Amino acid sequence: MIQTIANIRVRFSETDAMGVVYHANYLPWFEVARTKLMAEVGLPYRELQDAGYMLPVLEAQCAYKNSAKYDDEIAVHAVMKTFPRVRIRIDYEVRRGDELLTTGYTVHAFMNREGVAIRPPSFFLEKLEQSFSK
Amino acid sequence: MIQTIANIRVRFSETDAMGVVYHANYLPWFEVARTKLMAEVGLPYRELQDAGYMLPVLEAQCAYKNSAKYDDEIAVHAVMKTFPRVRIRIDYEVRRGDELLTTGYTVHAFMNREGVAIRPPSFFLEKLEQSFSK
Amino acid sequence: MIQTIANIRVRFSETDAMGVVYHANYLPWFEVARTKLMAEVGLPYRELQDAGYMLPVLEAQCAYKNSAKYDDEIAVHAVMKTFPRVRIRIDYEVRRGDELLTTGYTVHAFMNREGVAIRPPSFFLEKLEQSFSK
Amino acid sequence: MIQTIANIRVRFSETDAMGVVYHANYLPWFEVARTKLMAEVGLPYRELQDAGYMLPVLEAQCAYKNSAKYDDEIAVHAVMKTFPRVRIRIDYEVRRGDELLTTGYTVHAFMNREGVAIRPPSFFLEKLEQSFSK
Repeated sequence: MIQTIANIRVRFSETDAMGVVYHANYLPWFEVARTKLMAEVGLPYRELQDAGYMLPVLEAQCAYKNSAKYDDEIAVHAVMKTFPRVRIRIDYEVRRGDELLTTGYTVHAFMNREGVAIRPPSFFLEKLEQSFSK
Repeated sequence: MIQTIANIRVRFSETDAMGVVYHANYLPWFEVARTKLMAEVGLPYRELQDAGYMLPVLEAQCAYKNSAKYDDEIAVHAVMKTFPRVRIRIDYEVRRGDELLTTGYTVHAFMNREGVAIRPPSFFLEKLEQSFSK
Repeated sequence: MIQTIANIRVRFSETDAMGVVYHANYLPWFEVARTKLMAEVGLPYRELQDAGYMLPVLEAQCAYKNSAKYDDEIAVHAVMKTFPRVRIRIDYEVRRGDELLTTGYTVHAFMNREGVAIRPPSFFLEKLEQSFSK
Repeated sequence: MIQTIANIRVRFSETDAMGVVYHANYLPWFEVARTKLMAEVGLPYRELQDAGYMLPVLEAQCAYKNSAKYDDEIAVHAVMKTFPRVRIRIDYEVRRGDELLTTGYTVHAFMNREGVAIRPPSFFLEKLEQSFSK
């Protein structure tokens, strides 16, 4: 299991006319935490892309319990619970202090530059294994 | 069962650096179709809001099969399959011609101005019943 | 002078916690009208891109007079007033019925795939000339 | 003159199909820096809103020189150069290291809860005066 926490301050642009964060705007936050998780494992997503690999989202889910508001300081927990074979699943929790605001997950698979789904490259799995075995 | 189709042309602002529509941007499209569905049933969401009712998203899910691209003409199907009791579920399919791009669903519940969850108001259920029984 | 009007219905995702459309979200509307203008002139931006040309925004300006709200039907007027040499300027007006909500402009220049600024290609200027001389 | 710098890491959601940050997405960054500037002066925008004051954007402008990319660490400088009377102008520079990416400005005015334009409240001007005279 590997995990991280990304700290985010809610932007006014992320709110909607209900006065709270628009529901779709939690997904970019998931991605901020996912980017941090990959970088900490030694696999910056930017470098994966430069090397010709993409990790598109195959599925995303989000359950909303409480609302984030403008200027809130929130923490986005991202955790990869199981070592991936083909599909990579990451789970998320968005918290404001002790309060759980949102849970969710995303599922990803590797794709090459031609848009063809491929197995995770070996350097990716090796790096990941080092982090999982810590 | 009630349903509708919203036709949308993909905006450049909705794409990302992978050259396709960013995954979170399908959720606002779901909402465009949901807005149309409610209006056709005689329950414009804007009027519900003016009357003090909100229908926040409790859960959203999206599965991505093929990518939408800039300037694509896509059709977003929205369908309410079962008559709601407390929770309201709507299912979506995003298509480009015959090609299925994305499926998903959202779950909603009524909330009053104070942010308290409430049962769907009777005028809402009555209007909905008329459409379901057609 | 060439011009067009794009009709847009305001999405809930485009609003903010002030209850109106977030100021940055007028720029994607400008682009919707710009895309329509180029297509009507016979120069779909999508095809320009496929041919290796990009038209990045060099400058954008927006002046806000009245607020657009959720579900409003608005009209975005786009007009190219002067025949372009190197820089291409388009002016915009966003209206809700008779009411002027926003004015603005964008300035563009051609760029090739390597990201180098270039003069507008001759086929572009010829097509444009046909429309200007109508 | 009062000023601040906000550090931002570019999100994938902020990019577009040209592979760089979508032009409209610089405006929310301006707002992040503006929010920080107001907080540092002792006038958190969130508290202004709670007190019934709004500071809508009357005008926004942005000039693009170089492109920000995914995962870039950028610095957004915000500066209020002149002590405001009715209109409040803030200027911005977006930098990546030594490189200037974007310049811009926004103009604001106070509005009360009824949406009526008003003069800046005296507590606002007093606080601001303290910072300007430092």
